[in-house]
Amino acid sequence: MDYYSSYITKLIEEFARLPGIGNKSAQRLAFHVMNQSDEQVKHFTDTILEAKANVQYCKCCCTLTDKEICPICASPKRDASTIMVVETTKDMAAYEKTGQYEGVYHVLQGAIDPMRGIGVNDIRLRELVERLKGDIKEVIIATNLGVEGDATALYLRNLIKPTGIKVTRIASGVPVGGDLECIDEVTLLRALDGRIEQ
Amino acid sequence: MDYYSSYITKLIEEFARLPGIGNKSAQRLAFHVMNQSDEQVKHFTDTILEAKANVQYCKCCCTLTDKEICPICASPKRDASTIMVVETTKDMAAYEKTGQYEGVYHVLQGAIDPMRGIGVNDIRLRELVERLKGDIKEVIIATNLGVEGDATALYLRNLIKPTGIKVTRIASGVPVGGDLECIDEVTLLRALDGRIEQ
Repeated sequence: MDYYSSYITKLIEEFARLPGIGNKSAQRLAFHVMNQSDEQVKHFTDTILEAKANVQYCKCCCTLTDKEICPICASPKRDASTIMVVETTKDMAAYEKTGQYEGVYHVLQGAIDPMRGIGVNDIRLRELVERLKGDIKEVIIATNLGVEGDATALYLRNLIKPTGIKVTRIASGVPVGGDLECIDEVTLLRALDGRIEQ
Repeated sequence: MDYYSSYITKLIEEFARLPGIGNKSAQRLAFHVMNQSDEQVKHFTDTILEAKANVQYCKCCCTLTDKEICPICASPKRDASTIMVVETTKDMAAYEKTGQYEGVYHVLQGAIDPMRGIGVNDIRLRELVERLKGDIKEVIIATNLGVEGDATALYLRNLIKPTGIKVTRIASGVPVGGDLECIDEVTLLRALDGRIEQ
């Protein structure tokens, strides 16, 4: 890496720190930026800083929003007594795209992951516990279906169950359009466990 | 895309404009940045702006460098009478990594690509023509082996040949370690055309 200016090397390192960006992609991005006009680069960094300055966590559900209370929490049309707990704002957006869910959300901004040192105090659990003191009928756990998501779901279940609030978790099974022979064994067994009488 | 703040949507669009970054990756990057601390984001944008402010094109070979004349052009150890013409600073770095080439470079910062409206005046050809007025013995064409690189190589050949300067192009053929059965037909035919008597 002595073939470039140290400024470019530093920039490549900075890009390579982003998730999903390897060294080759980081190089491509750095040279792309270097070949752009001053205005284009300024516009790029301004967009980042502006977003960072204006976006905050919703005081209610902890999603990323540019308002104090996000539009979903603020909407009188949503059923505030049903909370779907998701890991990220992206997961929330995924369910919003279905257009069918009428409850509200709680965004944990992460999942319990002891391997990476992320414990119960590092995600937005305290805020959820506060919300449960209100008039809540059901908490739908929609964390991801991996090890961390499962651990988080189990923790949430044990936390909420004693309060008497109904706790459910979204179904795990073969996705629509999925070919049985292409599905992993764990999913097949989960689909079997979760079978529904017809 | 109405599920996020407009600031995040704008940021996602900005990331999606980068080469090799699709919509999903852009989302991941935008949310990653939003979840970082103010200092980390500031450091990221500062690195970009600093690199952009300090990096320029070498007055001689047009590579990206933080000096007026890049270290290779400035080095008395390099043979300034042999110029290898490459498309990008990355290509130059690739040959520098071999540690064997002793000549200098000329970085076109692109290749002729009429389909995308990139003509002979959009790449650093004028600067190369200027350099050829000096004491140059050989120009080695090392543009990429695709359609644009080939078109650029042909143009360079026709431009330089009449001046009497020796023009060569790096060999095209089966890469070292390449399995013949896995190599495309065009490469196999090029390797055949370029066969060398043993």
